[in-house]
Amino acid sequence: MSEWILTKGDFSEHPALDFERIMRRCRKDGIRRLVVPKDTYLIEADFCAQAYMTVSNHGHNGPKRVAFLIEDMEDFEIDFSGSLLMCSGILTPFALLRSRNIRIKGVRLDSDFTQMLEARVVAHNEDGSVDVEPIRGMEGFIILRGLLFCNRAVYPRDLQPLHLQVEYRPDTGEIEYGTGDNTFNRKPLEIQFEQLDNGNLRCLNPNRLPPIGNVMVFMGSRRVGSGFFLEECDGVVLSDIVVYACYGMAFIAQMSKNLTLSDFHTKRAEGRYLSANADATHFVNCSGDILVENCSFEGQLDDALNIHGMYTRVLEVKGREVLLRQMHIEAMGIRIFHKGDRVRALPTDTLIPYEEHTVEEVEYINDRICRLILDTPAEHIAVGDDIENISASANLIFRNNRVQNNRARGMLIANIGTSLIENCYFHTSGSSVKLECDGEYWFESGGVGELIIRGCHFDRCLHGKWGKAVIEAQKRKAVLEDSYFHRRVVIENNTFTLFADGVAQINNTEEFVFANNKIISAESANAHVKADHIRSLTVQPDVVLNPEE
Amino acid sequence: MSEWILTKGDFSEHPALDFERIMRRCRKDGIRRLVVPKDTYLIEADFCAQAYMTVSNHGHNGPKRVAFLIEDMEDFEIDFSGSLLMCSGILTPFALLRSRNIRIKGVRLDSDFTQMLEARVVAHNEDGSVDVEPIRGMEGFIILRGLLFCNRAVYPRDLQPLHLQVEYRPDTGEIEYGTGDNTFNRKPLEIQFEQLDNGNLRCLNPNRLPPIGNVMVFMGSRRVGSGFFLEECDGVVLSDIVVYACYGMAFIAQMSKNLTLSDFHTKRAEGRYLSANADATHFVNCSGDILVENCSFEGQLDDALNIHGMYTRVLEVKGREVLLRQMHIEAMGIRIFHKGDRVRALPTDTLIPYEEHTVEEVEYINDRICRLILDTPAEHIAVGDDIENISASANLIFRNNRVQNNRARGMLIANIGTSLIENCYFHTSGSSVKLECDGEYWFESGGVGELIIRGCHFDRCLHGKWGKAVIEAQKRKAVLEDSYFHRRVVIENNTFTLFADGVAQINNTEEFVFANNKIISAESANAHVKADHIRSLTVQPDVVLNPEE
Repeated sequence: MSEWILTKGDFSEHPALDFERIMRRCRKDGIRRLVVPKDTYLIEADFCAQAYMTVSNHGHNGPKRVAFLIEDMEDFEIDFSGSLLMCSGILTPFALLRSRNIRIKGVRLDSDFTQMLEARVVAHNEDGSVDVEPIRGMEGFIILRGLLFCNRAVYPRDLQPLHLQVEYRPDTGEIEYGTGDNTFNRKPLEIQFEQLDNGNLRCLNPNRLPPIGNVMVFMGSRRVGSGFFLEECDGVVLSDIVVYACYGMAFIAQMSKNLTLSDFHTKRAEGRYLSANADATHFVNCSGDILVENCSFEGQLDDALNIHGMYTRVLEVKGREVLLRQMHIEAMGIRIFHKGDRVRALPTDTLIPYEEHTVEEVEYINDRICRLILDTPAEHIAVGDDIENISASANLIFRNNRVQNNRARGMLIANIGTSLIENCYFHTSGSSVKLECDGEYWFESGGVGELIIRGCHFDRCLHGKWGKAVIEAQKRKAVLEDSYFHRRVVIENNTFTLFADGVAQINNTEEFVFANNKIISAESANAHVKADHIRSLTVQPDVVLNPEE
Repeated sequence: MSEWILTKGDFSEHPALDFERIMRRCRKDGIRRLVVPKDTYLIEADFCAQAYMTVSNHGHNGPKRVAFLIEDMEDFEIDFSGSLLMCSGILTPFALLRSRNIRIKGVRLDSDFTQMLEARVVAHNEDGSVDVEPIRGMEGFIILRGLLFCNRAVYPRDLQPLHLQVEYRPDTGEIEYGTGDNTFNRKPLEIQFEQLDNGNLRCLNPNRLPPIGNVMVFMGSRRVGSGFFLEECDGVVLSDIVVYACYGMAFIAQMSKNLTLSDFHTKRAEGRYLSANADATHFVNCSGDILVENCSFEGQLDDALNIHGMYTRVLEVKGREVLLRQMHIEAMGIRIFHKGDRVRALPTDTLIPYEEHTVEEVEYINDRICRLILDTPAEHIAVGDDIENISASANLIFRNNRVQNNRARGMLIANIGTSLIENCYFHTSGSSVKLECDGEYWFESGGVGELIIRGCHFDRCLHGKWGKAVIEAQKRKAVLEDSYFHRRVVIENNTFTLFADGVAQINNTEEFVFANNKIISAESANAHVKADHIRSLTVQPDVVLNPEE
């Protein structure tokens, strides 16, 4: 049997348990195509399969419940016929591990609870306090000594203070202009809450009064699951997919290649403001062809797309041996090094490499420390510098997509390969495209090889905060004369409808072209382009180049 | 090379890294005996090896740092020559996984921090508050809104409220008489703390004033490591070992057999009051000969020894298939079932079995749910009842040991095999020996097969609280006429120096003998023995049998 068409009779009152058995049989019997009848399936974490997962940028490794575990499979497709998976409990609906040529289509993911609290502002009181009304109720949250905690912890007796507030306008669904991350204008742990008899929350000491009707999102801090998690896969196509809610990123792939997301959406469920609890899509040390097209990304807590590698810190050098430490806690357990990889060493301030080697052997000591044996002596590599793996280089195409009303930025590009962003619409609250990597805090690596942005409409971006220009490159601490961190950035034939002055800020780049873009300035906004430490610069004449600060 | 004698030259500034490499080589080259030169070794968690571990009764599964990883090894010995391992960071110094015939000797374990705070009472203030002086400082703790948290969490942004206080008398090192777990006579989360300029802590609202000079221990709630962890091992001898501190139990073995602890000690380090953060020794589903002799167990947070199996709840029965759920969160991931095991079904109130089967197949779906295929139809097994695995039955000998000044009870015996407790000294704050298992809360299983307690001195036990009699059996919710939960309990030739009335309370037992014991009553204490639902009862004449309440 290479195709298995399920019927409603295949399901009990615990579909998660049924799917576990079905997937076990698919793996065992080499089923090629599974068809799930269109329905709403309750997916209880309690009854899901399980895998041990270390997930980059989530900060929480360990045993994870998984509804569909696609592990060491090849040439397999699931067609969900447009079904809805209503998840209950902490789980990752899809995990694809060490698998090839996998297709998943026609599925929508929602969750009854994801450690976030949405609440509508209902009153400004005379004593300066603000009342908000939780949209789905306070279930899952408690107030202790005036602190708001998520009480559905992974382990008993843990408390998760809510660490972030984001504020939406109810009419347009946009991030409230200029608000950024702390809309009470106070650090989250300084805010004093009490619960009122009618179930509403009172914030006693705001330094800013969010307008009545606005919707606040309070976030728990743990990313204990994601929508789709991929590790060491080759050839995955996800299509016709909607993620309404999940515990972390909607999609994250690490050490994988040749991935397609088509007609993949993060979307707000009816009456809600947040979709995924983190990025919509995220690629760590991925390579080959990565195609994201005909998608929309709305309401997720963070970027629509982030693609990057990982810098690791040199602890010790002995002959051909280099001892490395993965620095960021959310990078723990991500095994990016393999025999045969090309790596280079670089100082953490310039991030300009000075030496390149091939990896001959890798020894992982724990989630954080590994030992590389290189092809040639490494004595020029300085302790305290970083190592970058340059074997993972992607050909990214992001085309015909719509990005809007998410917190923070649109796309973070740190891909040493080629990146094309084409025919997209951006209405992001922060920068739309950011070249953000660093060797000292996030340790996300990758100067861009070639980045081409064309035919896009950047529509009143930057209205929330989170950035200085619609397209922006992070500055390095130091630059090297005649050396450049990025190779080529081309921004052409786009339309910019401005909310603020900054159109583009690019630096430390061999070639930068800003040409043939149509700029529609708001009354208060001038079109500013900043360019710094560029070898070859082309900028269209109708913008202010490098305005005085 | 079957023996490897290390020298000081084998060590760098990161001994954990050296030991990782040494152990890797021992596993690879089949070293039979490793000798470590006597020294103090700093063991940094950052540089340790790692294993994925699910540890019973610890409540925290996942990737764990391990200094000495003994995995799939056979016939291997380490002699530490009396060395001290000073652990830094969250780690489990020893993990023995799927190994046979292993000997470890001559090692002491300490830790710079284990999520607990010891503080001496220094002042009673006029406003009713109490000041305490942290013995090792407040490093690792913060006060937030008056709540005391451990801020060295496993994952960033988690907060661990301190959940327990225990109080010691400084002169004798005993638990303060009658104090139990909450010495401020308030729930931990109700207590309001502030930090004084001199570094002391002020407790603002105690309902009881602990005497000046007494030492309070405030506990973080996570058991994120242990001293020695064993899983699926056969033939392990630990000797000449001291555990001064660790994150959880000093020793825990699960699904293992033929284990010897000789000259193994939990001991308070100089100037400190707590040793291990949980039990000294703990055995889950262990079998074969278990010998604990010439040991001392002082200052650990919980029992000197606990031995038990595990009840699992029946969720579904279909033909020969039974779907089970491990109920307690701290039992998650512990895989007690194997093909060929004998299991029996029982109602949760009486715990008296009504049906027995052999397991033909086991399918673990996740950490909590598993499916058993039994040898014969299981339709008489009721959903909601429990299943007990009776293939793990130990022959326990606990001999020539000293148990004193620990919180709570001395020993918890739920061993369906035979248990002999002989020539031991007990000065426990709660019951010295408790037959505690239940099918509805902890789900620790096992009516005792035969328990013989002889030649012991029970010296002023029960002075802290935690129990009604020096030797006590938990009552079942319901009993069955002519059926007994325990088989045989014999208490003879012991000396009881009483602090309180209760000498023994045994019930639901086929044969109970209490004979030839010497009882030294305190002025206020009468020697009471209670016996209920016993088929064959023998009680010496000089005690009050079943006094009226």
